[in-house]
Amino acid sequence: MFSMDATLFEIISIWVVLFIAIIGLGYAFLLRYQIMRHDKGTAKMQEVWQAIRLGADAYLARQLKTILPLIFVLTAVLFFSVYIIPPSEEALHRFSAYSSETVRLIVGFGRAAAFVMGAIFSLIVGQFGMRMAVEGNVRVASAARRSFAEALKIAYRSGTVTGMLTDGLGLLGGTVIFIIFGIASPDVLLGFGFGGTLLALFMRVGGGIFTKAADVGADLVGKVEQNIPEDDPRNAAVIADLVGDNVGDCAGMAADIFESYEVTIVAGLILGLALVSLTHELKWIVFPLLVRGIGVLSSIFGTYLVKGEGKNQDAFSSINKGFYASAGISIVAFFFLSMFYMHEWRAFLSVGVGIALAIVIDEITKYFTHTQHPPVKEIAHSSKTGSATLILRGLSIGFESSAWQFIVIAVTILAAILIYWGQPAVFVLYGVAMTGIGMLTLTGNNVAMDSFGPIADNANGIGEMARLEPEARKILADLDAVGNTTKAITKGLAIGSAVIAAVSLFGSFITDVSKVQAQMGIVENLQLFVTGIRVSVPAVFIGMLLGGAIPCLFSALTINAVARAAALIVEEVRRQFRIPGIMEGKVKPDYKNAVDICTVAAQKELIGLSLIAVVSPILIGMLLGVEALGGFLAGVILSGQLLAVFMSTAGGAWDNAKKTIEDGLHGGKGSEAHKASIVGDTVGDPLKDTAGPALNPMIKVINLVSLLAAPILIRYQRSDPRIIVAIVICSLLIFGAILYSKHGALSFKNTRREHGF
Amino acid sequence: MFSMDATLFEIISIWVVLFIAIIGLGYAFLLRYQIMRHDKGTAKMQEVWQAIRLGADAYLARQLKTILPLIFVLTAVLFFSVYIIPPSEEALHRFSAYSSETVRLIVGFGRAAAFVMGAIFSLIVGQFGMRMAVEGNVRVASAARRSFAEALKIAYRSGTVTGMLTDGLGLLGGTVIFIIFGIASPDVLLGFGFGGTLLALFMRVGGGIFTKAADVGADLVGKVEQNIPEDDPRNAAVIADLVGDNVGDCAGMAADIFESYEVTIVAGLILGLALVSLTHELKWIVFPLLVRGIGVLSSIFGTYLVKGEGKNQDAFSSINKGFYASAGISIVAFFFLSMFYMHEWRAFLSVGVGIALAIVIDEITKYFTHTQHPPVKEIAHSSKTGSATLILRGLSIGFESSAWQFIVIAVTILAAILIYWGQPAVFVLYGVAMTGIGMLTLTGNNVAMDSFGPIADNANGIGEMARLEPEARKILADLDAVGNTTKAITKGLAIGSAVIAAVSLFGSFITDVSKVQAQMGIVENLQLFVTGIRVSVPAVFIGMLLGGAIPCLFSALTINAVARAAALIVEEVRRQFRIPGIMEGKVKPDYKNAVDICTVAAQKELIGLSLIAVVSPILIGMLLGVEALGGFLAGVILSGQLLAVFMSTAGGAWDNAKKTIEDGLHGGKGSEAHKASIVGDTVGDPLKDTAGPALNPMIKVINLVSLLAAPILIRYQRSDPRIIVAIVICSLLIFGAILYSKHGALSFKNTRREHGF
Repeated sequence: MFSMDATLFEIISIWVVLFIAIIGLGYAFLLRYQIMRHDKGTAKMQEVWQAIRLGADAYLARQLKTILPLIFVLTAVLFFSVYIIPPSEEALHRFSAYSSETVRLIVGFGRAAAFVMGAIFSLIVGQFGMRMAVEGNVRVASAARRSFAEALKIAYRSGTVTGMLTDGLGLLGGTVIFIIFGIASPDVLLGFGFGGTLLALFMRVGGGIFTKAADVGADLVGKVEQNIPEDDPRNAAVIADLVGDNVGDCAGMAADIFESYEVTIVAGLILGLALVSLTHELKWIVFPLLVRGIGVLSSIFGTYLVKGEGKNQDAFSSINKGFYASAGISIVAFFFLSMFYMHEWRAFLSVGVGIALAIVIDEITKYFTHTQHPPVKEIAHSSKTGSATLILRGLSIGFESSAWQFIVIAVTILAAILIYWGQPAVFVLYGVAMTGIGMLTLTGNNVAMDSFGPIADNANGIGEMARLEPEARKILADLDAVGNTTKAITKGLAIGSAVIAAVSLFGSFITDVSKVQAQMGIVENLQLFVTGIRVSVPAVFIGMLLGGAIPCLFSALTINAVARAAALIVEEVRRQFRIPGIMEGKVKPDYKNAVDICTVAAQKELIGLSLIAVVSPILIGMLLGVEALGGFLAGVILSGQLLAVFMSTAGGAWDNAKKTIEDGLHGGKGSEAHKASIVGDTVGDPLKDTAGPALNPMIKVINLVSLLAAPILIRYQRSDPRIIVAIVICSLLIFGAILYSKHGALSFKNTRREHGF
Repeated sequence: MFSMDATLFEIISIWVVLFIAIIGLGYAFLLRYQIMRHDKGTAKMQEVWQAIRLGADAYLARQLKTILPLIFVLTAVLFFSVYIIPPSEEALHRFSAYSSETVRLIVGFGRAAAFVMGAIFSLIVGQFGMRMAVEGNVRVASAARRSFAEALKIAYRSGTVTGMLTDGLGLLGGTVIFIIFGIASPDVLLGFGFGGTLLALFMRVGGGIFTKAADVGADLVGKVEQNIPEDDPRNAAVIADLVGDNVGDCAGMAADIFESYEVTIVAGLILGLALVSLTHELKWIVFPLLVRGIGVLSSIFGTYLVKGEGKNQDAFSSINKGFYASAGISIVAFFFLSMFYMHEWRAFLSVGVGIALAIVIDEITKYFTHTQHPPVKEIAHSSKTGSATLILRGLSIGFESSAWQFIVIAVTILAAILIYWGQPAVFVLYGVAMTGIGMLTLTGNNVAMDSFGPIADNANGIGEMARLEPEARKILADLDAVGNTTKAITKGLAIGSAVIAAVSLFGSFITDVSKVQAQMGIVENLQLFVTGIRVSVPAVFIGMLLGGAIPCLFSALTINAVARAAALIVEEVRRQFRIPGIMEGKVKPDYKNAVDICTVAAQKELIGLSLIAVVSPILIGMLLGVEALGGFLAGVILSGQLLAVFMSTAGGAWDNAKKTIEDGLHGGKGSEAHKASIVGDTVGDPLKDTAGPALNPMIKVINLVSLLAAPILIRYQRSDPRIIVAIVICSLLIFGAILYSKHGALSFKNTRREHGF
């Protein structure tokens, strides 16, 4: 199986990890089976639920139709890419029994298949997880009529299904590829990572636009203009809003974390293999797989503990208990693994830094966005001088949190430098990748906590629309509030892990480029960082500036897309309110229309935005060379992290400032302060749930495309006529993508004309 | 005078440039003399004017008192820095007649004196220019009662005084230093640049906080709550608002552009000297000085043309005519200079790219912020669904403009690469510096156009408060509207030139570090970019991340400072409105109180913010080394430009969206759309006039400090006990600066308690 000398322990370990991945998936299906046996409540509840389910299904079906052509094209591109550059030396060595032509076929097929696998896994996590959430929420609402413990258990376990799918599929894919391709894995792993990341990008962008268009649109007319409560059944966008919670918070977030989970293992294995070739020890790749395996087992144990039984009905502490149980088991196991298998404390420290990082980022997120801390209090206070000062405070808090997040990530890398002090830089990069793996150890629990949010939210919405009993409503409202907190915690983690994953990929890019250059004889030996990526070279500096531009452009386009779609929803809800009988609650509004508007609007933006992410690194690499592409990646990471953290934090802080006012501060609901805080919340919504999160997968798509393209860029000269043709094609594609985004604006004008507003 | 062989033409040229600088200053004084002879109007007008003048003087006096201690400390630090590192080889060579101890004294004294000179020149430009504006505005108001042409002429020429001071002093300083220090200039030039930049930072930050606290505070109570017009004399903050226009838009902007003007010549001379030592030709440093000299002469000619005579009273086309006359003269002169002195087209092209860049940035600024173009129209349209969607559109337009600005700067550097294709990278950097010099050729005209804005604005305010005749009011309102446009044009130029100047300084940093390393034998010869700044090295990547954090932190603190100060003004104006008789216009409000609040609030933030800019690069350099400091600079430039452009553009677009609605769109004044647009404008004000512009000098302060510190950082090891002590001191300073900013929040709490709100 391995071309290196593997110990028996190592061979067994790999198969054990594969088995653990399957156990994780089995656990997910067991939970699903348990949940599905619960009842779906009254006919009224099922009516609401059916509307949500149909909306969500329609969205997913349409999304699949939109992206399938692109997936086909990219699969073909990945397969035929092996005909541009020959298989690596590792691949020839791994499959030395075959001719080089056959090896070419094997690698090409492996890469394309891994891409499809990554895409399908990501789809499964997102779609299956979301369907599970939809199945769960009506059952939670029904269970709330019986007991708190049952409602909590169903809600949390529905979320856990998604969590364990994330864990199980991420681990399964990486391990299978490693078992088949051994030291030749990197090429194929990149395909796997790319597939998952690209799908996550689609789901983040599409889901984010859907959910916030519906949310903002519903609130603007319902809460602000008509002064009716949230989730009021007279609002035509209320079902679209509930569907949005699922496709955005649930499917989008799950795919996002799956992708970080996947990409950290890809980067860890690539950097691990670089260390294997330096040290001739296999442990550098077995270790991350084992760490992940331990994480899956401890997530199973911890999530199963969450039952909501006991005297006081505290959902949050119950969920937390499960989390800390998992964390404790993992840390102890990592320690023994490091000491008795790696025979060193460094591996343990790297992974430990990751766990510490998850906690620190969580604390920072809490500090900036929780109601008890000064930032949100200051925002709430500034509502007294109106919405403008409230917005300003939020912007400033967003900027400040970006600054601290930069510092935390810098300290994390510094920790890796100190841990691997005196070793070549590739060890430091490996340390950073291990930190990323450590950070995502408890992905099972984290995704469960995140999905719990929209499930509880939807259950509460169903309860409100189906006019359940007050006791049941109280339980559902409590679960919803806890869900908001658990959701927020995951959001910080998603960004933090995205940046660490991107830095790990950047590290893989550096080692990969050096390796190819060494094999081609451009640099003398495998000594890494011979030249490195010098921003002091003008072309590389240009690359960095252009890298900085991409997240700005991306954010602008996604915010605009939400604003456009929300404006359509506003007009639609207003139109329906004008229909006699709707405002009095006698006539049922046409919910489907609003869902359709969101679905179409979200799909329209996907292709343009994803083309920008996929094509821009190729174009930069061909125009300015591979070193400038490195500068481009650095620019993308810097500007992407800045904007992602800024938007998520500001949005979260405004959201909670509104909540503190609704809880009675500064005049409470209906006061001028409350109105000001609703403006803040509405501005923050697309920032924190669409534009900000979309940057996480975007940064990594760009990194992965760069990694895939690097060998081609090194091999072919810029003066090569084929490269010139490719440059022209890529320029046209980018130009087309921007035009396509402009087309959004045009079609908005058309719709405006049609609707006459 | 020169250690290189200077031709007679070159020696004469330098003295001619010095003479031109003095002519520029003489022209400024001539204009001032002409303006001062005009009358100051009625007693009522002079009363308003006196209030503005006293407020502005009080602000300047207090600011000087706040910053003087820091200036003293830094002067001493710069003088004694020569005792840490010995004088450069160039200095020993330049003053070979003296002992090395004497040379040390000369260089130390020169550097400290140049620092003080830079600071004083910047102060003169800011303070003298502002006083001129204050003298001008009452005379403009008075002249408007007689004729349009006279009012325009006085307004524009008052602005031109500041413009020619900027030109003259910037050129004078650079030339004098070059005449005295010859090839040893770089060390001393850095002191000159640092002095000017630091003062610009003070004036930008202090003036920005003052002007926006007054503006936002006055508007929130006056326009939004009480629904009374702008500049209504019943509003207690109305004088503070007018003072703010002067200290912010006038003094702040002039100091900002002066500093870019100065820094581009500093970077141009440093890079030029690097080329001199490579090619042994003096032309590389004589050329930028001559280009600047030509610019001053053509600005004199062009600004003198602006008279407002002729049939139609079109102020904008008259100002434009002067601008194009200057531009035409410059371009023709540059062509002859390049062909007959430089004997090549490359120098001409580099400078020409700069002029093209100024035009392109102007067009981009116009596209994103002018009322006729889609972005502002879309923002105005989105006001129909409330302030939240209006804010979102503005944010997205801000992000998009950042993306395009990155692309434009990247293309500019690409042009330098193409122009100097096949030459060593230092030529490319020289080309970028020449582009910066070309871009700022018409600084005289630009600053005149900018200062024209607040002068016309103030004249209009005086006219309103002194209740002038309708014809005069019409003329003043027209001039005010044109002033808004000319001001906006300069804003784009200020950011663009700041980035190009920062990139030039970054280039100087690279060549400087290489030179010191070569002289110390760390690298083998003066071949530049032997290793360069590799972001692929983990420590350098950390530097880049931390660099990215600084502009975020800075923006957060400045926005917060404005929000805090504005809240105080709101309370003060509300308090005064409650005094019987004020609302009825029978009792005169106490204007001085509001001015005092703004003055104190603005000064409080200066020291903390400037310490962060000055100390952070030293700390990073000592902790992580000089290469990581390079990464830090790259991060600062990237993140700084992103935020500066984002904030300025979004703010400008909201401002103009409000104006289009006030001109009758979507319901006009008093409509719901108008209210929404006022929220947007209020959010945008501190972004575009405080936080955004403060980043321009901040980026350059950090670059200049890095350049000054680099030789020390290279010479001393991190393990040196003195460096460890310095690290501790710097950490404490940074920590103290952040605490000091927190103190702002504390004092806000106290004031809140005292005022009982």
